[in-house]
Amino acid sequence: MTRVATDSRHEILRAAAKLFREHGYSAASMNDLAAALQLSKGTLYHHFQSKDEILFHIMNDALQITEDQVKKPVLALRDPEERLRTCIRLHIEVVLHARDREITVMLHENQPLSPELRKRINARKKDYVQFVEALIADVQRAHGSRSKVDPKVAAFALLGMINWIYQWHRPGGSITEQELVDQFTQMVFSGVVQ
Amino acid sequence: MTRVATDSRHEILRAAAKLFREHGYSAASMNDLAAALQLSKGTLYHHFQSKDEILFHIMNDALQITEDQVKKPVLALRDPEERLRTCIRLHIEVVLHARDREITVMLHENQPLSPELRKRINARKKDYVQFVEALIADVQRAHGSRSKVDPKVAAFALLGMINWIYQWHRPGGSITEQELVDQFTQMVFSGVVQ
Repeated sequence: MTRVATDSRHEILRAAAKLFREHGYSAASMNDLAAALQLSKGTLYHHFQSKDEILFHIMNDALQITEDQVKKPVLALRDPEERLRTCIRLHIEVVLHARDREITVMLHENQPLSPELRKRINARKKDYVQFVEALIADVQRAHGSRSKVDPKVAAFALLGMINWIYQWHRPGGSITEQELVDQFTQMVFSGVVQ
Repeated sequence: MTRVATDSRHEILRAAAKLFREHGYSAASMNDLAAALQLSKGTLYHHFQSKDEILFHIMNDALQITEDQVKKPVLALRDPEERLRTCIRLHIEVVLHARDREITVMLHENQPLSPELRKRINARKKDYVQFVEALIADVQRAHGSRSKVDPKVAAFALLGMINWIYQWHRPGGSITEQELVDQFTQMVFSGVVQ
């Protein structure tokens, strides 16, 4: 029972994320959501009390996906350079990965989340930025780099490069995932280690 | 008369962009817009026939601002390196510039623009990407660079770094505009010229 409930909860979030993207978050009511998801209002409210709560869980799931699929595998590695390389590769994979794309892309929409929930999302985002910043600082230290590029600025640059992929990259287009990984890795390493 | 009308048209777009950002594009009706802008419905419809048209003009103005404030001054320069440096500096200025920030930030929202208008916006966005791509290719050529970084990938990386600034940079925060310009310039040049 619990397993089915968990799965369907994730399915609801994915479908809701898709609906928000297509028709706009602010226009969709809980009624619209239930209808579009072919759920009774009761079932929808069993999972989520409000639209705000759904948006929060979409964003929170997106952060959980990023932590599970990027941060955890990276922290299992030792070598600083290997860590940063792996972080870039795995984060690009999350962005391009089809299954949860509806979820992860919502992380960057500026939707009107309530201040309390916004605060919790922002704190988790900040954690991730600091994780990337530390990876970059470690690579600079390992290389005895005299680069003037601040790890924090470089972390935001890296996240901008990768998260911006949502805006332009089309699967099957002229730039393959492997090219993207190789070239972004090369640019970041040239930029932070000099 | 024309001048006043033009000015107020821009003011309507700025106020509408602010409203869309705060309350959501899809939730706001033309009636809401007129009320929030303290305009009669007649005056609003005199300028714009629909919400879709308003969104199109916000995005189109954002692209016009970027062309006027970045592309035009850059094309007046000769030296490839100077051109790319200036492009980075001026584009960051557009992103951080307060007055039209409401307008320019809307360019990256994934709002449901009608296919016909979306096509026109995308064509103009593509033009700008190709402009940046050409600047990068020229710098690589001038340096006889053997970099394996493709100018197109590098252009998207650069635009990602700069347009992502909207997501995290707060005026008066720990990273100044000058630091941002200097460090992004350094990262891009290291990345594309090797």
